[in-house]
Amino acid sequence: MQGKMKALVKTEPAPGLTMKEVDIPAIGPDDALVKVKATSICGTDYHIYAWDESFQERIKPPLIAGHEFSGEVLEVGENVDIVKPGDMVSAETHIVCHTCHQCRTGQMHTCINTTIIGVDVDGCFAEYVSIPAYNLWVNDPGLDLSVASAMEPLGNAVQTALAGPVAAQSIAVTGAGPIGLMCIPLLKMCGAQKIIVTEVNAYRLNLARKLGADIAINPAEEDPVAIAKEATGGLGVDGVLEMSGAPAAIDQGVKMLRPGGRMSALGVPSKRGVTLDFGDDIVFPAITIEGIAGRKMWETWYQTDGLLKAGLDISPILTHEMPMEDFERGMELMASGDCGKVVLIP
Amino acid sequence: MQGKMKALVKTEPAPGLTMKEVDIPAIGPDDALVKVKATSICGTDYHIYAWDESFQERIKPPLIAGHEFSGEVLEVGENVDIVKPGDMVSAETHIVCHTCHQCRTGQMHTCINTTIIGVDVDGCFAEYVSIPAYNLWVNDPGLDLSVASAMEPLGNAVQTALAGPVAAQSIAVTGAGPIGLMCIPLLKMCGAQKIIVTEVNAYRLNLARKLGADIAINPAEEDPVAIAKEATGGLGVDGVLEMSGAPAAIDQGVKMLRPGGRMSALGVPSKRGVTLDFGDDIVFPAITIEGIAGRKMWETWYQTDGLLKAGLDISPILTHEMPMEDFERGMELMASGDCGKVVLIP
Amino acid sequence: MQGKMKALVKTEPAPGLTMKEVDIPAIGPDDALVKVKATSICGTDYHIYAWDESFQERIKPPLIAGHEFSGEVLEVGENVDIVKPGDMVSAETHIVCHTCHQCRTGQMHTCINTTIIGVDVDGCFAEYVSIPAYNLWVNDPGLDLSVASAMEPLGNAVQTALAGPVAAQSIAVTGAGPIGLMCIPLLKMCGAQKIIVTEVNAYRLNLARKLGADIAINPAEEDPVAIAKEATGGLGVDGVLEMSGAPAAIDQGVKMLRPGGRMSALGVPSKRGVTLDFGDDIVFPAITIEGIAGRKMWETWYQTDGLLKAGLDISPILTHEMPMEDFERGMELMASGDCGKVVLIP
Amino acid sequence: MQGKMKALVKTEPAPGLTMKEVDIPAIGPDDALVKVKATSICGTDYHIYAWDESFQERIKPPLIAGHEFSGEVLEVGENVDIVKPGDMVSAETHIVCHTCHQCRTGQMHTCINTTIIGVDVDGCFAEYVSIPAYNLWVNDPGLDLSVASAMEPLGNAVQTALAGPVAAQSIAVTGAGPIGLMCIPLLKMCGAQKIIVTEVNAYRLNLARKLGADIAINPAEEDPVAIAKEATGGLGVDGVLEMSGAPAAIDQGVKMLRPGGRMSALGVPSKRGVTLDFGDDIVFPAITIEGIAGRKMWETWYQTDGLLKAGLDISPILTHEMPMEDFERGMELMASGDCGKVVLIP
Repeated sequence: MQGKMKALVKTEPAPGLTMKEVDIPAIGPDDALVKVKATSICGTDYHIYAWDESFQERIKPPLIAGHEFSGEVLEVGENVDIVKPGDMVSAETHIVCHTCHQCRTGQMHTCINTTIIGVDVDGCFAEYVSIPAYNLWVNDPGLDLSVASAMEPLGNAVQTALAGPVAAQSIAVTGAGPIGLMCIPLLKMCGAQKIIVTEVNAYRLNLARKLGADIAINPAEEDPVAIAKEATGGLGVDGVLEMSGAPAAIDQGVKMLRPGGRMSALGVPSKRGVTLDFGDDIVFPAITIEGIAGRKMWETWYQTDGLLKAGLDISPILTHEMPMEDFERGMELMASGDCGKVVLIP
Repeated sequence: MQGKMKALVKTEPAPGLTMKEVDIPAIGPDDALVKVKATSICGTDYHIYAWDESFQERIKPPLIAGHEFSGEVLEVGENVDIVKPGDMVSAETHIVCHTCHQCRTGQMHTCINTTIIGVDVDGCFAEYVSIPAYNLWVNDPGLDLSVASAMEPLGNAVQTALAGPVAAQSIAVTGAGPIGLMCIPLLKMCGAQKIIVTEVNAYRLNLARKLGADIAINPAEEDPVAIAKEATGGLGVDGVLEMSGAPAAIDQGVKMLRPGGRMSALGVPSKRGVTLDFGDDIVFPAITIEGIAGRKMWETWYQTDGLLKAGLDISPILTHEMPMEDFERGMELMASGDCGKVVLIP
Repeated sequence: MQGKMKALVKTEPAPGLTMKEVDIPAIGPDDALVKVKATSICGTDYHIYAWDESFQERIKPPLIAGHEFSGEVLEVGENVDIVKPGDMVSAETHIVCHTCHQCRTGQMHTCINTTIIGVDVDGCFAEYVSIPAYNLWVNDPGLDLSVASAMEPLGNAVQTALAGPVAAQSIAVTGAGPIGLMCIPLLKMCGAQKIIVTEVNAYRLNLARKLGADIAINPAEEDPVAIAKEATGGLGVDGVLEMSGAPAAIDQGVKMLRPGGRMSALGVPSKRGVTLDFGDDIVFPAITIEGIAGRKMWETWYQTDGLLKAGLDISPILTHEMPMEDFERGMELMASGDCGKVVLIP
Repeated sequence: MQGKMKALVKTEPAPGLTMKEVDIPAIGPDDALVKVKATSICGTDYHIYAWDESFQERIKPPLIAGHEFSGEVLEVGENVDIVKPGDMVSAETHIVCHTCHQCRTGQMHTCINTTIIGVDVDGCFAEYVSIPAYNLWVNDPGLDLSVASAMEPLGNAVQTALAGPVAAQSIAVTGAGPIGLMCIPLLKMCGAQKIIVTEVNAYRLNLARKLGADIAINPAEEDPVAIAKEATGGLGVDGVLEMSGAPAAIDQGVKMLRPGGRMSALGVPSKRGVTLDFGDDIVFPAITIEGIAGRKMWETWYQTDGLLKAGLDISPILTHEMPMEDFERGMELMASGDCGKVVLIP
């Protein structure tokens, strides 16, 4: 499809994004062109917007930002039979090689040649996006478009939560950003016995409580390790979902665990070094720390889809919705932490 | 049985052990009295001998040291039917409570009320030892007594190695102390494709090579991460058995892993803080770190016994054997690192 | 405690049970005496009552029947510290040896020397029961006593359901007897996407619907395999919980599964031979059939307890409650199938 | 490449194959043309040759038979970058759809749209074969070409054996056809404690002994269940690799298992009904039966490749090698059972 579209573009290696008119992207034989209906802001998007040091080497302007979206398939390339025009879709944002060891052993989510839309190639903060058709997930036509735009981060939550047992377990969630918040209804739905949330931002801590966290702690004010131990008869929690990337929270997380417990770690620290008491907190209590990357392709998507169909409701976490033009307000909200997920409508 | 026996006793809160005559221990209704045939020196024993700071609070003199041993059952308490006089035995050194959550869910090796012989109660550097009969493992009468004395640390090696897949895998062992060395014939026997060992001590590095390590690296001289990557086509190893407790080795270990690989961590750092690149080395590559404590009771013992019966040979690692009287020479060998396992004969 | 009590006794090798006065049982040093507050009827109890051929060899009259109960601890033996008088308890009915390979490897539920109360030794259809204290599970004092009497069969349901993934999965339950019925709220609570139940008895099928089964099928009237395939887009269900022991249901169960699915099989056929299409239904689709015995000791009990604390409600399945004197009416209900769980009050 | 080649063709719906000259196959954009260096005969090939009833509906003449082969890549289609001319290859014989639930969740080996070369499309009993490049596995140039032709059935053995623990385990192999025989060196290499083989054919039973089976039983002469129990102290074996498809062997296999053991079942019965004692042999002892289909794509291939590189030697099982022209002699050998794997050289 030829023509022009609005898009949020990182035009130069500096803070900010620019709303500008660009060409509607072309599609190759394996791609689909999708009309973007809703797109949500990820922490990564904010880091790119703010031009954080950790992204300065990887991002090559000009680049259309954004990777979380829902939309409608408009056109498909000649080799495509997995989706068709009219399909309402969400997208896996990792474009994988299909040939490396990881891809060939059921571990595409850790493909060693991954490229990511909105990071390595043009993204979805735009009216249209071109993406390999393989990366699309067809939703029920009736799925709310804002919820659908958040299927990708919800998939992070699902992979993290379901990386270990949930039913009948006591689980701590360290960090109540949007993905941490999504874990709360998810854990409740999957039979968790007790949900303990730690978060420093008051808005998010309050939202955690509304979503049904049994205990919600501000670790700047209370000792989450002592509280988690007390809430579990002194034993410690069965699992920790590490969503913050904060070194202190990671350290508290391993200390909260009972012997033999699991930490599933999705949060990425902004700096490299995290110091842990490896002997007393990992070796002797025989705990497991598992890194969580992206979403299992496509097991996590089937699970996420299934949970939504079974009634999982993340809409209270989609706290803000605004026209794409207002992206700067959305980015400010992300910076403040006084929000759940922020959705932009192109 | 009444009478006197020789024993190595920590008589006061200070370095050293004293060979002295003490009472043969009494047994309770659930205990067995074992004539010690061979006892081997663990790193823990050396730390107690040297009166390292980390043990000064836990050890309450007077205490007979030592926990690894083989021997013959002489007498049993009235409730005992699991062993009988004449049985040749090795021993699990963790005395567990049988009633905590861990004990009641198949995780006795992480019992929250564990006491350890030779640490919390009198040990086996003596002619006789009293121990709960439940803690004994009956060996084939023909099993070499020195090998039998090392069943407990061999069990550490077995639990660590078999905590993840071995067959057809490339595995790195970081640290070639006695337990790290035991991993080499064990991994070969279980079908490992490639074994990479890192160790700074020349004697142990040489022994690792003789035992069949495919690659043996001194990380003070070569870059183990680069070598491990090169040896695996750039991907990284499937598994790391962390046996050193050295912060640098732990860091190198996670960096050696392929995405999705596993580190099974037995080595305990002498200081608390180990700093890791949590995001780039754990979260993004989705690796798993699992702490390994003791031996699964008793799955690990069945495995260890089975591997010995199937031909596992650890005798080359039992490099030194001497009368118990010569324990100071044995401790010096441990301090130097120029040894495998040192066995004392009471 | 000395004295007399009422009990339901199999007095001779013939159909029926006799309500009679017998001695209150003595307790040994490891036992507890429990005042029975509620006791529920298992299919096994009915088979013993009816003197089915399959039990004629095992049951040695005189025997007090019954194994599911809740009660209050009155007295404990001298070695007991795991419970104390006044504790409100349910009981694991498998008395295990603690020394066989199974017991020593975390698999007590398949102890090769198991004895079962009410089958091999006197049971709980009585005012008092003596049982090893190790077999008791302490409940919250406020737990409903009838629900508590059904903790043991609920544990069967929990072990079966949680033997594989539940969250986001489509699960079929073949057979809606009391344990099959318990699976319905359990599966819903643990995030199942779709629950399909097959059952021939109209009363139970109706109860299954009330409990929230998405699809409830009478296989005498409709084809459950075709319906299960249709409900899953032609693929088949992710899991089957086999609760009936009916050869036809087992065969339908494996045919309902998607490739790679799991059947967790608790139901025991009344006759020995079950004929399956082993190649087309098991090998080629790579399904897994796992036999489920009893309850994992004690992992299943922690899970069951946790789910009850998190709100699991099985009370609608406790359809009938009556004085122990009316046991013949209870047995008739069991024979008719027009009931859920029947509870007797001593 | 244009021209003619020799091939073994099922020319009509009747017993036999015909050696005839046909066109060298064309390749599509995703295919590779491979010069066949060695091809081995599978039981499936024999069934097609013999025109067994079970294949009469599926096979549509004319069809070139054969699916196990090694060869050299000659040409590749325009989209292919995964292999290149000159590569020495083996092939996965399942051509999968990449879009069904199974393919998208790491379970390609149970793709619901699988086509198989030599069964559904032209195969490799020919001088050249065209196959999707995705299906090729690149071998070390030095790998023996006959061994390489048997990588596919060896992969069956690897997937079956490694579907559960092997190290330190006692394992029974029921059926010593070529794949069952391959399990013997494989199990030994992966640390099995004891290997018990059952087989009715004397030639194969003898070969099993030569390969190192600890116990080799002819079930027509001895009771394999009693012998397996005796060899394991009465407990039963930890695992059974079911390779025969014989109903009696499947029944004996489940009876040989210890409680909690696993049967990994690859053998396909020639008739539909296999009758098992589902209650006493599966439910009560809590065993697991897992069907094994093909090879995990591509985890099994990495494992198989790794084991060969680590020294796995299956050459004693390649008992016969002959020119492709002598295929009828090869088929007679297969019919008699007096052979291991039979290799044809085009």
